[in-house]
Amino acid sequence: MAVYTEVSDDALSAFLREYDIGSLVAFRGIAEGVENSNFSLRTTDGDFILTLYERRVDPADLPWFLGLMRHLAARGLSCPLPVAGQDGEPLRFLCGRHAAITTFLPGVWPRRAQVVHCRLLGDALARMHLAGADFAPTRANALGPAAWGTLLDKCRPRADAVQSGLAVELDTALSRLLAAWPAALPRGHIHADLFPDNVFFLDGRLSGLIDFYFACTDLLAYDVAVCLNAWCFDPDFAFNATCGRALLAGYNSVRPLSEAERAALPVLAQGAAMRFLLTRLYDWLNTPPGAFVTRKDPLDYLRRLRFHLATKDFHAYGL
Amino acid sequence: MAVYTEVSDDALSAFLREYDIGSLVAFRGIAEGVENSNFSLRTTDGDFILTLYERRVDPADLPWFLGLMRHLAARGLSCPLPVAGQDGEPLRFLCGRHAAITTFLPGVWPRRAQVVHCRLLGDALARMHLAGADFAPTRANALGPAAWGTLLDKCRPRADAVQSGLAVELDTALSRLLAAWPAALPRGHIHADLFPDNVFFLDGRLSGLIDFYFACTDLLAYDVAVCLNAWCFDPDFAFNATCGRALLAGYNSVRPLSEAERAALPVLAQGAAMRFLLTRLYDWLNTPPGAFVTRKDPLDYLRRLRFHLATKDFHAYGL
Repeated sequence: MAVYTEVSDDALSAFLREYDIGSLVAFRGIAEGVENSNFSLRTTDGDFILTLYERRVDPADLPWFLGLMRHLAARGLSCPLPVAGQDGEPLRFLCGRHAAITTFLPGVWPRRAQVVHCRLLGDALARMHLAGADFAPTRANALGPAAWGTLLDKCRPRADAVQSGLAVELDTALSRLLAAWPAALPRGHIHADLFPDNVFFLDGRLSGLIDFYFACTDLLAYDVAVCLNAWCFDPDFAFNATCGRALLAGYNSVRPLSEAERAALPVLAQGAAMRFLLTRLYDWLNTPPGAFVTRKDPLDYLRRLRFHLATKDFHAYGL
Repeated sequence: MAVYTEVSDDALSAFLREYDIGSLVAFRGIAEGVENSNFSLRTTDGDFILTLYERRVDPADLPWFLGLMRHLAARGLSCPLPVAGQDGEPLRFLCGRHAAITTFLPGVWPRRAQVVHCRLLGDALARMHLAGADFAPTRANALGPAAWGTLLDKCRPRADAVQSGLAVELDTALSRLLAAWPAALPRGHIHADLFPDNVFFLDGRLSGLIDFYFACTDLLAYDVAVCLNAWCFDPDFAFNATCGRALLAGYNSVRPLSEAERAALPVLAQGAAMRFLLTRLYDWLNTPPGAFVTRKDPLDYLRRLRFHLATKDFHAYGL
């Protein structure tokens, strides 16, 4: 769930007076999302999303995130457009938090990803990568390969309490994938967290991408690998090659993966599985029982990681 | 938070085809609410709320709840209006749950109740009581005085683990209030759970009452006593007589409390505090750590109960 901060009536009224978006009509917390507090906001001018930035988002990164979203929206990508206050600034303060209002996107995120979604997702991901090409500022991937060793160090002492032998298995896998990590692939701005609940569909079209708060500058094909993990495994954790093929075909139709990118897919997919495994494992070990947040099972990603470690080459993904 | 059941795309599409309310535009989980799963639903025809009925709601009661809401809305009360399917039936099934679509109400619930809210609340509560007078079906209060002894029995063995001496204190208070419980006061349909998050305000008016899933047929003045508990205590648990006076003045301006109802207010308020104390205590003792739901502290209501036990007469409430 995602309302960590309650916004008082007076604070909300005062906040809205900093904008020129009409007067308040409705205000409800949104259940989706994990990192920030999100509210559905209706004014006499229309519908918006109000986000209060909570833990894990570094305030210093917020101008970059909002700048990227504005850049992508200006190039025709359907993503939330930050709304500026009367002074021209979209990044503001509310209830002791950094906060921003963005436009509302219609659509529904798919509870069960299907082939048609994967095809449209691949297409949109490639369009996002192309649209971001001329956004000059960069942001390092704080949860990229350089961070995984440190994350694993923090989890190692208690990892085996989650599953016997987990620490050794992760050490081995991490050494292997870091040794094979590709250095010279095309780089750009990636979403880095494009899970189904961040992608809206409407009437058979992809209607929007949201939640750019893990976006960063990294290997473009790593973003594809994140999506292969997030969209192309069946509920029993078997890789769905039909979904994989559709995702890659959609991507290739807009921005064809190079030979080097295709060859690197297995190791990139291992890395993406490792990234979500480690952050989930860290949260699992460090979220107090009874806390507000639903902990996600890290072992879901161990199963994905094992699949990627066993793949011979990129054909495993449907190419 | 309040999304216990995920609704798949296919299930939602099929469900909407049972209605004549246009096609899907957006669908988001709503963070507010505890008992049921609620979703904000937008179609080409407008905005709605989709509710999936979860634990604690007896399906046999649902036609009564929906019938009462329809009745109240027809008499001009601003409450959710159940939307019927093409076959005329508003109560339907979705994802293994009973489900209903209701109209969307604008407004914002007050995070901090103020005197102006209490006055408008009292007025609306009395109008609800009058509007319900000619709704013939009745529903017994499953969480009324007859249920409190059983609830306390279930909590007693572990109550002192929450606070030393709690079991004895509650036994004493319950015996005392049940002995003094008024029998002959005016009865009718009451909301029975009219907390601030169930009341919307907009532009200085009360714009709607929601969540009628504890509504029942009981003493009208007991509903007033629930509101005195829910709206008129400051964050430090001191009773705010200015809020109490405003709430009662608002109520009296529409439906004047009789002398007997006024005299019974302290014991009714004790009962209302006991009801929320006991259900919270039960949940506190029976919610596993790490569960999805935020447990509410039962002792917040022990403080209220003690205030009501110490009051000499109804003047304590601002009358």
